[in-house]
Amino acid sequence: MTERLVVIGGDAAGMSTATNARRGRSVDDLEVVVFERGDWISFSACGEPYYVAGIVDPLERLLVRSVEDFARGGITVRKQAEVLAIDAGSRTVTVRDRAQGRDEVVAYDSLMYATGASARRLPIEGSNLRGVHEMHTLDDARAVRAALDEAGADRVKRAVVVGGGYVGIEMAEAFHHRGIATTLISADPHLLGETLDAEFAEAFVEEVRALGITVVTEERVACIQGDEDGRVTAVGCGDQVYPADVVILATGTVPNVELARTAGLRIGESGGVWVDDHQRTSIPGIWAAGDCVETHHRLTDGPVNIHLGTYANRQGRIAGINIGGGDQAFPGVLATAISKVMSLEVARTGLTEAEATRAGFKAVATTFSSTTSAGYWPESTRMHVRAVADRPSRRILGAQIFGGPGAAKRIDALAMAIWNEMTVDDMVNADLSYAPPFSGVWDPVLVAARKLQELLG
Amino acid sequence: MTERLVVIGGDAAGMSTATNARRGRSVDDLEVVVFERGDWISFSACGEPYYVAGIVDPLERLLVRSVEDFARGGITVRKQAEVLAIDAGSRTVTVRDRAQGRDEVVAYDSLMYATGASARRLPIEGSNLRGVHEMHTLDDARAVRAALDEAGADRVKRAVVVGGGYVGIEMAEAFHHRGIATTLISADPHLLGETLDAEFAEAFVEEVRALGITVVTEERVACIQGDEDGRVTAVGCGDQVYPADVVILATGTVPNVELARTAGLRIGESGGVWVDDHQRTSIPGIWAAGDCVETHHRLTDGPVNIHLGTYANRQGRIAGINIGGGDQAFPGVLATAISKVMSLEVARTGLTEAEATRAGFKAVATTFSSTTSAGYWPESTRMHVRAVADRPSRRILGAQIFGGPGAAKRIDALAMAIWNEMTVDDMVNADLSYAPPFSGVWDPVLVAARKLQELLG
Repeated sequence: MTERLVVIGGDAAGMSTATNARRGRSVDDLEVVVFERGDWISFSACGEPYYVAGIVDPLERLLVRSVEDFARGGITVRKQAEVLAIDAGSRTVTVRDRAQGRDEVVAYDSLMYATGASARRLPIEGSNLRGVHEMHTLDDARAVRAALDEAGADRVKRAVVVGGGYVGIEMAEAFHHRGIATTLISADPHLLGETLDAEFAEAFVEEVRALGITVVTEERVACIQGDEDGRVTAVGCGDQVYPADVVILATGTVPNVELARTAGLRIGESGGVWVDDHQRTSIPGIWAAGDCVETHHRLTDGPVNIHLGTYANRQGRIAGINIGGGDQAFPGVLATAISKVMSLEVARTGLTEAEATRAGFKAVATTFSSTTSAGYWPESTRMHVRAVADRPSRRILGAQIFGGPGAAKRIDALAMAIWNEMTVDDMVNADLSYAPPFSGVWDPVLVAARKLQELLG
Repeated sequence: MTERLVVIGGDAAGMSTATNARRGRSVDDLEVVVFERGDWISFSACGEPYYVAGIVDPLERLLVRSVEDFARGGITVRKQAEVLAIDAGSRTVTVRDRAQGRDEVVAYDSLMYATGASARRLPIEGSNLRGVHEMHTLDDARAVRAALDEAGADRVKRAVVVGGGYVGIEMAEAFHHRGIATTLISADPHLLGETLDAEFAEAFVEEVRALGITVVTEERVACIQGDEDGRVTAVGCGDQVYPADVVILATGTVPNVELARTAGLRIGESGGVWVDDHQRTSIPGIWAAGDCVETHHRLTDGPVNIHLGTYANRQGRIAGINIGGGDQAFPGVLATAISKVMSLEVARTGLTEAEATRAGFKAVATTFSSTTSAGYWPESTRMHVRAVADRPSRRILGAQIFGGPGAAKRIDALAMAIWNEMTVDDMVNADLSYAPPFSGVWDPVLVAARKLQELLG
């Protein structure tokens, strides 16, 4: 008899699950149905700032595969189909067809919970003024871009981005790229939250400022002002007011777990849906993956809920393989991340010194500057590296990088080293590539190991 | 009593030894003297093609540190000082002051043998014609550049580079960069010898041709023609003749081991001076490092003699640390290499499928194309990857890459994976970085693991 896999959520985690389950089992054996409450499936949320900037065009370029593509692959996708409830006892979900306004009960044998995350809404007065946008869905991106395009070059002169995380800095880039005077406001003392150590983050903030973006730190926005037409005019209502023709609220994201909680799925201490290493939830037959789940950090062994497309894809793939009859485990994360603002690249992996210390490691850290190519290479740019190690075990624990083109992707070699629990002594002689256009004879990755080795004695 | 370290050879291996030994022991404890037979010390040979191209200027930019720099650090360097003989019994060397024409016997307590490599000289008729150059020393680079500059843009219209290795392709770039019609002649069926698998190398050759460089393969040059003034006119004397105003002979390099052999040092089967993992030779008190030594390949466990500045620096550092009272071992190599020709990057690490099979592995290999950024990113370029794994152990054994800007440096993440003996199953979920300007959501490094996983079942 044909079983049915129901997938809640049609983005990275959900569609990866669908695709991999489909690959593992025939159409006769497994029917695969995806319910997506919105209009978009399988899209690159990470590309949205670049669409707003006008670097990527049209919006459809951010779509990876269409409903028709999936249909041809034996996967049924229904848009505007919102799952309202999960009944784990009867193995059914209640789905609302939002276009028709009709509810339907659909039975499942396996259920994938891949509801993702939503923009975190802070209680900011005036958030509903015209010209104030979130930046999470493709619809958000389209709205911002349309506002800029329709207004014309004259109207939108000043942008304020509230939130100094990755989306915040990428949106600052987008506005700056369009020639709009841009202010980036962070509630934290720096940018990128605690993903960089404080002193290193401070140096990064200076570089962002040097690009021509105004960065305001330790500023909590409680209020946004508008004119009589209900159109935004400024961010802030106290002493400090930042005039704005367009405002982005990028104050983080929260996992969508309400439906899971109501259904009785265990929620982890990180706030994400608890899953085992096979992406199984606490209720048999129900799987979960992506932004909405809790995963474990390989270095602290603690639970984390991190919203990255890479994890959604990999976890979805693993769940799909397992539903499809395979047996694969998700081995946890290092919280590797990368971004850029104009010509300035930034990346991190593993633990900062502060995180490592909090996790109980006897952490030591080194900060140094190097170059992206041989020093004499004309296009060589500065890159700054911070690296963290554990004193007793001499293991590399983390790295942070910012600098010019070619700097940040080096984080991958460091992530591989950390993943494999390398000591700095082993790492220092690792056989990495060298030619003058690509690095100095000691690649900055190896210099990091050497500096840590010197520090550890 | 003060001991003396004598270093033979003032480039990467020798100067790294000197610097690290100096760091480990005080001036009262250890005198450090370097004898260099030529005029240059501590220079970037890898930068020479870029000086010829005019990308790096002046030549002195390729010098890392000067005799005066070393003197300030407590290291005596003598140029034009050629060591003619080593007497291991009496622990002395005979040094000729080439400027004065005087010989001197100098005692040592420790001796570092770091004589490097020389250009391989094939018996080619006409190699001594004017306009025919080797490309190994800074003097070679200066001579070629001077010939181009003096001749003016009009005179040198056609260049022929004999030898399809890294130096050959980089010199082809140099000439092409200067607007000179360039022919690259390889005796092998492809370029870069056996460092790439044949079918992959073939595709790479096509890309080099697409850049506008004429590539001739399987052509053994036995003769070079000149005019009555003794100036080169063409390469080849048989059916195929390649007109040339300037010719580079880049037919490989050979380790300088004669002095070592005469002194009774054991020479390994690779042709390099045998050393243990601490860089000690077969004779007590004598150390060796760099292009002239044999090292071991981590995957085959066999002996290799590979001429790379990275190894020279690392081995020299280790020898210096050990001479300085430390205890470090050189852990072997993966034969990682990287290069570029104009906008085309190329890199490799570990074993090719052919090498792996020869070494007794049950090798499988996959070849695929990906992009350097998200597919929709405007500056995204194609990159081509070949990856090799061992069937029974499922370990990743090697990788080869060519493609546009950003492609080749990814070899470092693969080198780290191979260094750590990762299985493709572990590798596929490694937490590498992702953002649209830097890669697709599955970085090509992870796609390589995924493709190998699929191949292995």
